[in-house]
Amino acid sequence: MICVLAGGVGAARFLRGLIQVVPPAEVTAVVNVADDMVLSGLHISPDLDTVTYTLAGVNDTERGWGLAGETWHALEALRRFDPDAWFSLGDRDLGTHLYRTGRLAAGATLSEATAGICAGFGLEVSVLPVTDDPLRTRVTLATDDGAAGEEVDFQDYFVRRRHDVAVHSLRFDGADVARPAPGVLAALDAAEVIVVAPSNPLVSIDPVLAVPGVRQALTERRADVVAVSPIVAGRALKGPADRLLRELGHDPSAIGVARHYAEVAATLVIDEADADRAADVEAAGMRCVVAPTVMSTPERAAALAARTIESGRGHQAAGS
Amino acid sequence: MICVLAGGVGAARFLRGLIQVVPPAEVTAVVNVADDMVLSGLHISPDLDTVTYTLAGVNDTERGWGLAGETWHALEALRRFDPDAWFSLGDRDLGTHLYRTGRLAAGATLSEATAGICAGFGLEVSVLPVTDDPLRTRVTLATDDGAAGEEVDFQDYFVRRRHDVAVHSLRFDGADVARPAPGVLAALDAAEVIVVAPSNPLVSIDPVLAVPGVRQALTERRADVVAVSPIVAGRALKGPADRLLRELGHDPSAIGVARHYAEVAATLVIDEADADRAADVEAAGMRCVVAPTVMSTPERAAALAARTIESGRGHQAAGS
Repeated sequence: MICVLAGGVGAARFLRGLIQVVPPAEVTAVVNVADDMVLSGLHISPDLDTVTYTLAGVNDTERGWGLAGETWHALEALRRFDPDAWFSLGDRDLGTHLYRTGRLAAGATLSEATAGICAGFGLEVSVLPVTDDPLRTRVTLATDDGAAGEEVDFQDYFVRRRHDVAVHSLRFDGADVARPAPGVLAALDAAEVIVVAPSNPLVSIDPVLAVPGVRQALTERRADVVAVSPIVAGRALKGPADRLLRELGHDPSAIGVARHYAEVAATLVIDEADADRAADVEAAGMRCVVAPTVMSTPERAAALAARTIESGRGHQAAGS
Repeated sequence: MICVLAGGVGAARFLRGLIQVVPPAEVTAVVNVADDMVLSGLHISPDLDTVTYTLAGVNDTERGWGLAGETWHALEALRRFDPDAWFSLGDRDLGTHLYRTGRLAAGATLSEATAGICAGFGLEVSVLPVTDDPLRTRVTLATDDGAAGEEVDFQDYFVRRRHDVAVHSLRFDGADVARPAPGVLAALDAAEVIVVAPSNPLVSIDPVLAVPGVRQALTERRADVVAVSPIVAGRALKGPADRLLRELGHDPSAIGVARHYAEVAATLVIDEADADRAADVEAAGMRCVVAPTVMSTPERAAALAARTIESGRGHQAAGS
């Protein structure tokens, strides 16, 4: 069994590669839900949807999010009344939100709604929200002089402001009382290798680790935990991870990622472009594996997944 | 000023005709909201939407509801997860529901959300929900032996069961504490003629009259109130009005309609097909006007509207 802590696009690509080299039924994805939002009454789970759409092979690879062959009639109609509507809701994507919201309104948990979506797509991978409880990343923007400014919802920061603003700090609202969703701790416990996917460490993985019990589960299994750096040559392949790392006091590099994950993971996979930082990663307390990490094709994603799993197993075999 | 109490399709066609013969800015529609429902988190107002879509000329005339040129991608996507999804949500229609729900979630009233929709369509008619408070028609189904059976939501009865079931009784949940929406009583007070549109008397007009203050306003203006019978030759042109009248103890005819409205309206417009019932309508206590009431073309709708308004004015002039 393999358990993968997952955010959105990077994690989804990794998972898609992983099921080329591991039977899908042996994979559990524990997915961030702190990006979730309720918009116009609909419960939207961006990371869960990115993971399920990608695993189902129905994601739009060019746009990088949402469904392939999507249409935008609902959004166009909405903008007739509200020209400022800023969140892109595709028509087919709305079907997912309608289903999820309807299930939640009828008393189902987010796990149960997610299982229904996975069943609709015929997925064999177990896709679990990290928690069924409310967990929301709140972003305090930085003022011009670096002080704490307005606090906004994550999607307000990420989509509406296109993450093109300085961040002062983050907090995960609800993390203190959130409970791991059914199956999460069991999957971490049963996993031969636990992977921290190449997702944003601060806004995708940290909220997963913030759910009581998850960080501890990883710490206890540290030798079997392999993280994949989402930073290549000092830059995030997608999204604001590099800028956020810098603004929040981390080194925006594979080394910064190593320092951030050293407590929960024994091994870090870094890109070949960062091969010269391997010694620094080891100095930060992590075993370092150098591999091509840019998942520009499904084959490269599968190769990265194979190498990552191998690294976790190799580490165990070496007993280090 | 003309004020029209309105349900869905019949009222919308009448209103469309009315604005051919009266300046739209002089028309107020007071619309039933007891068919409203929250589905998958979205606030749906079927009668308000039928009225605004028809007045905007964007309604689907062939299907009889919803928007012309509609697509169904969201619904198809939803049915991948929930094959039993029974409420038809068109993609463009969803734009309306998203806007309304978003406004309500942000603290706006249903009146304000409706005004935003009307503004988006550039409508000059004032379209008012009869109330901003929750008002819901609840339908008690009849058992095989005519006793009270299960109580269901209106749309469960109307759409899911295609009104193909026997009804024992109706009630309007929330009617005791609902307040008329801003402008409703003023529009009734200021109207030269008040029209009760050819809508279902029991499930479209009765909930409007059930909002405290509305029935009384009509009773006080009775001489100026003209109702248009939705029953032609003993049958509803659309929907279950005839069956409901029968099952709930009324005569399913223009006479039954006359008896039902006699207290609130002085005049009833009945169809030429029912010309031989005119004396019975008068015996029921209403002045009777015979006219072609089947609005099969916009021209016929305009002619009916002209005749209806004329009847109200004529009545006043006659001082009867």
